[in-house]
Amino acid sequence: MVIEAVVPEVDAGRFPAKRAVGETVTVEADIFADGHDVLAAVLRYRHLPMAGEEPAWTEVPMGPLVNDRWRGEFPVTELGRYRFTLEGWIDHFETWTRQLSKRLQANQDVTVELEVGARMLDTAAARVDGNVADATKLAALAKALRAGKVTSLDGEAGDLMRRYADRSLSTVYEREVDVMVEPVKARFSAWYELFPRSFGKFQDVERVLPDIARMGFDVLYFPPIHPIGHTHRKGANNKPAAPGEPGSPWAIGSELGGHKSVDPDLGTLEDFRRLLEAAARQGIDVALDIAFQCSPDHPYTREHPEWFRHRPDGSIQYAENPPKKYEDIYPFDFESEAWQSLWQELLSIFTFWIDQGVKIFRVDNPHTKPFPFWEWVLGEVKKKNPEVITLSEAFTRPKVMFRLAKVGFSQSYTYFSWRNTAYELYQYFTELAQPPIREFLRPNLWPNTPDILTEYLQHGGRAAFQARLILAATLGASYGIYGPPFEVMENRAREQGSEEYLDSEKYQTRAWDLDRPDTLRELITIVNRIRHENPALQTDRGLRFHPTENDQLLAYSKSTPDNANVVLTVVNVDPHHVQRGMVTLPLDDLGIDRDRPYQAHELISGARYLWNGARNFVEINPSSIPGQIFRFRRRVRSEHDFEYFL
Amino acid sequence: MVIEAVVPEVDAGRFPAKRAVGETVTVEADIFADGHDVLAAVLRYRHLPMAGEEPAWTEVPMGPLVNDRWRGEFPVTELGRYRFTLEGWIDHFETWTRQLSKRLQANQDVTVELEVGARMLDTAAARVDGNVADATKLAALAKALRAGKVTSLDGEAGDLMRRYADRSLSTVYEREVDVMVEPVKARFSAWYELFPRSFGKFQDVERVLPDIARMGFDVLYFPPIHPIGHTHRKGANNKPAAPGEPGSPWAIGSELGGHKSVDPDLGTLEDFRRLLEAAARQGIDVALDIAFQCSPDHPYTREHPEWFRHRPDGSIQYAENPPKKYEDIYPFDFESEAWQSLWQELLSIFTFWIDQGVKIFRVDNPHTKPFPFWEWVLGEVKKKNPEVITLSEAFTRPKVMFRLAKVGFSQSYTYFSWRNTAYELYQYFTELAQPPIREFLRPNLWPNTPDILTEYLQHGGRAAFQARLILAATLGASYGIYGPPFEVMENRAREQGSEEYLDSEKYQTRAWDLDRPDTLRELITIVNRIRHENPALQTDRGLRFHPTENDQLLAYSKSTPDNANVVLTVVNVDPHHVQRGMVTLPLDDLGIDRDRPYQAHELISGARYLWNGARNFVEINPSSIPGQIFRFRRRVRSEHDFEYFL
Repeated sequence: MVIEAVVPEVDAGRFPAKRAVGETVTVEADIFADGHDVLAAVLRYRHLPMAGEEPAWTEVPMGPLVNDRWRGEFPVTELGRYRFTLEGWIDHFETWTRQLSKRLQANQDVTVELEVGARMLDTAAARVDGNVADATKLAALAKALRAGKVTSLDGEAGDLMRRYADRSLSTVYEREVDVMVEPVKARFSAWYELFPRSFGKFQDVERVLPDIARMGFDVLYFPPIHPIGHTHRKGANNKPAAPGEPGSPWAIGSELGGHKSVDPDLGTLEDFRRLLEAAARQGIDVALDIAFQCSPDHPYTREHPEWFRHRPDGSIQYAENPPKKYEDIYPFDFESEAWQSLWQELLSIFTFWIDQGVKIFRVDNPHTKPFPFWEWVLGEVKKKNPEVITLSEAFTRPKVMFRLAKVGFSQSYTYFSWRNTAYELYQYFTELAQPPIREFLRPNLWPNTPDILTEYLQHGGRAAFQARLILAATLGASYGIYGPPFEVMENRAREQGSEEYLDSEKYQTRAWDLDRPDTLRELITIVNRIRHENPALQTDRGLRFHPTENDQLLAYSKSTPDNANVVLTVVNVDPHHVQRGMVTLPLDDLGIDRDRPYQAHELISGARYLWNGARNFVEINPSSIPGQIFRFRRRVRSEHDFEYFL
Repeated sequence: MVIEAVVPEVDAGRFPAKRAVGETVTVEADIFADGHDVLAAVLRYRHLPMAGEEPAWTEVPMGPLVNDRWRGEFPVTELGRYRFTLEGWIDHFETWTRQLSKRLQANQDVTVELEVGARMLDTAAARVDGNVADATKLAALAKALRAGKVTSLDGEAGDLMRRYADRSLSTVYEREVDVMVEPVKARFSAWYELFPRSFGKFQDVERVLPDIARMGFDVLYFPPIHPIGHTHRKGANNKPAAPGEPGSPWAIGSELGGHKSVDPDLGTLEDFRRLLEAAARQGIDVALDIAFQCSPDHPYTREHPEWFRHRPDGSIQYAENPPKKYEDIYPFDFESEAWQSLWQELLSIFTFWIDQGVKIFRVDNPHTKPFPFWEWVLGEVKKKNPEVITLSEAFTRPKVMFRLAKVGFSQSYTYFSWRNTAYELYQYFTELAQPPIREFLRPNLWPNTPDILTEYLQHGGRAAFQARLILAATLGASYGIYGPPFEVMENRAREQGSEEYLDSEKYQTRAWDLDRPDTLRELITIVNRIRHENPALQTDRGLRFHPTENDQLLAYSKSTPDNANVVLTVVNVDPHHVQRGMVTLPLDDLGIDRDRPYQAHELISGARYLWNGARNFVEINPSSIPGQIFRFRRRVRSEHDFEYFL
């Protein structure tokens, strides 16, 4: 018996698949044997405790689909690691039952066959351990068979024989497959990034929390909040700092402390904890930045020079990408002789902030540190704190990004920022939705970040910001904006051809006029509300692209498995011109009756359209809103609904 | 460092990939590490001897393609099992060299960097074991670097550092991957099946060998040649046999012997060996049928009742597919208590015929016997006789057929017989060409067999036979025909809706008038000659389908990797009407210059057409020949070839 091609399984079980609490794990496998006997299979699963022995398996039956494919499912209700495997066997009794029925239909003499069946029942009775009633029933059924009473086989015999199936020759799948179960926010989250210092201190940030919550964000992410180094400090627009300039928050560490300290300019650790609590009251988690690197003034450079690489002249090796030098940054040497104490210390940084109440971390440049380090440190974190969520900030080659997702990051930044044409978006999100990628990589879509002001945003005006917001929020169950400049549509780059912001907040504080009447705040609020009201948008499963007959119009739907919630988004990616097209929908797949009109409720404007059939016209004017989000309502009233005749 | 997604690898190395002697194994893998250092990788391979220790690895360098994909290759020149693995490491010296060059271009002070490089050279010198000249050179290079002489790095330093690379932190791929190397006929073969008894005795078959060889076949396959049972013997058209009827050759065994005996009606073992030798002189291998089942009169049923399943009344269980009974056939019980002696005996049947000189076996219904048995028995056969080729006759569910190919069958029957529309053929052969399927399953395409006279052949007339021949011979590097009825286009089924031949040769002898003037012999001869003259048709790699703008026209090309041989086949699958279309070719992929005309040489008729550009017109009249096979000749003479001016 063969059990293979198991889904979800990542790299032959080397890495866990990912799920969120409350989801169902649907397991499929090819299960077959030689010959034509009837098979039976079960899915066995268990939740691994944080300590102690693994509990016993829970078993659920699997059922055949087509082409030797079988399916079963189990719910995941706890955080942490689940484990499953499969077992299959030849169901001789069921095979015999089906054959007997064919023999009877052909009016064959079945005397010998009834004896065959009776012997199976006898053997099963011998396997019954303790349940006298069942053993008695089986023996009685055997007796009835021998007496030629075939009718007594209906129902009960099959149930009993399944219960006491002979599994002595069963095949257990060669691997046990793990599933990492994380909080719902690992799958569905809306991030807002800001530099606290531009608002003042932590208590000043507290004051804007209600605004952020009202807009519908549930993760508030800060760049590093630690003391900033002085040596080679960078000033406005990445020039050497003049006295008094605050420096880049990623140049972590000074005489005031390192990765476990708070920059006094932002407040105290106590202030930070109060901010966390205030955010929590608004349903917001504060995400911290984990940037494993040091300024030359970081206490580690004095206390643990063994954690750094040294040049032949004895100095610590600064970061560089020759010929560029980043002398304000010392990378750690993950392969140093003292790697064990270094790794432990880095783990303790996670632990320190978890102890303060932080549950979400955005990890800076993980692709410049070894994969085995991440697999280890994220594993250690999850062992004690399965509620922790991590976001991998790796903008690098696709296979490196995939590997980081596999070794344990809950979410990943993507190439979304640079996928601006309809075809690019279709291609990229089709790729991300393929198995096994969708089993281990959860995209988090960012139209902008402090490092990325795309040309599309620089030159596309208001419509570009609106389109990218709608795309990020509906293509991705998780998305984020670098908020203040996004709200006010800041689009000035440092220079032609650069994606750096002019007067980047990385090097200086900025005052953002978020109360200007022309901000995107209202649209953001509407879009986030639509996400919260439509479960289809809260997962990356169920994404389908639809033809539009216009290269500038991207159409896609997301739907829940039962099609109770179907949301169609159409975006005009051309920020300058009106675009029109015909959207063709696979009505059957979306659960829409093709013989009745249905309502397309546009959720941004509130307009309701009556659509009919698979092809429907859309026209999108970017000077109004460059995207439309439709929810389909299948029940459309007709004259038959009026009770004319009563 | 990560090494993954290795091709060719079947089921994570569980099964070997397949190749034929003289081929090249191209290995690809994703190889990458964190960060931006330069990587180096090698492919290591060895041929496993039939006995004794594995030899040392041979190492060949791998080179990067794009997107972290690497490639290397090695030749397979011996039969039997090869094994390969991969090793990769970070090339610190090459990384340093490239960075140094960027630093120098930026006019940076490189004093410290030169010392870094010198230390690497010193360390490498210390790794040199015994080669004093190399050690001296490395030390000299280090000295030169310290003296600031950067120019001395060109060439030699890199070569030396590659030779003495520091692999102490290298990553070796976690698996060793096997490749089973078989004779060329495992990949490229043309089979002709006949029932010897219809020709008389073995010496009568000897007389038709020259005809079969002239037609271009190189495998002559016989149904079982053993004594035939009497009990429940079947007669003409599957009715109970009347006295004197010869019975089905698959009801193996009588008082005259079993699987290691020859039916005296065909001659003696001596006669058979003489036939083998006569065939070999014509370049033909005789393939025997391995049908592991017995007639009730087989000596095994008396000598080894423990190898069969018994019914409660003590009788041996006959074959059945309820309500159908096949009382002339007893299947073996592969899971009986005595399975070990049974398996050994079955192996000895292979060995017996191998000892007589048989090298090719067509295995009957392998899907009704356990996979582990086939994996074991084929493995044992190959250990001693790697030249043996086996063909799996499993017409069953796709995954079962794939599994049989994985466990060791050299070739497999396919669904080709029932894929008759252009779209079905396109879909099916696209599927078979996908990795990993193409790594383990070699299709052998049969338009007909003694069990299969398709409706397409029954109703399509001469054109149907011609089309199916051309398709089988050009879509498949291996194909076969159940020859005599195919040559004379026998198309009478036993009854409406049946695929059984009327007066099937399975149950009676038939006289075939193969010298009739209207047979397909000439076309068969031409098509086989085309196969022999065009290497592109001798492999299943390099198959591409091309659009025709006509559903009834199937167009596909096969080409050698260097495009030296490109063959386009266009078949009209409608046997009743003329069909026309435009074939669109990917000229660049086929190595055809799009700016010059090229010659399309139609190899069946000999006609030569001048084509130009990607789109070309074809018209196929099934009442002539329903297919055309073009070889492209790229060099077309023009007026520029005349030396007007000399």
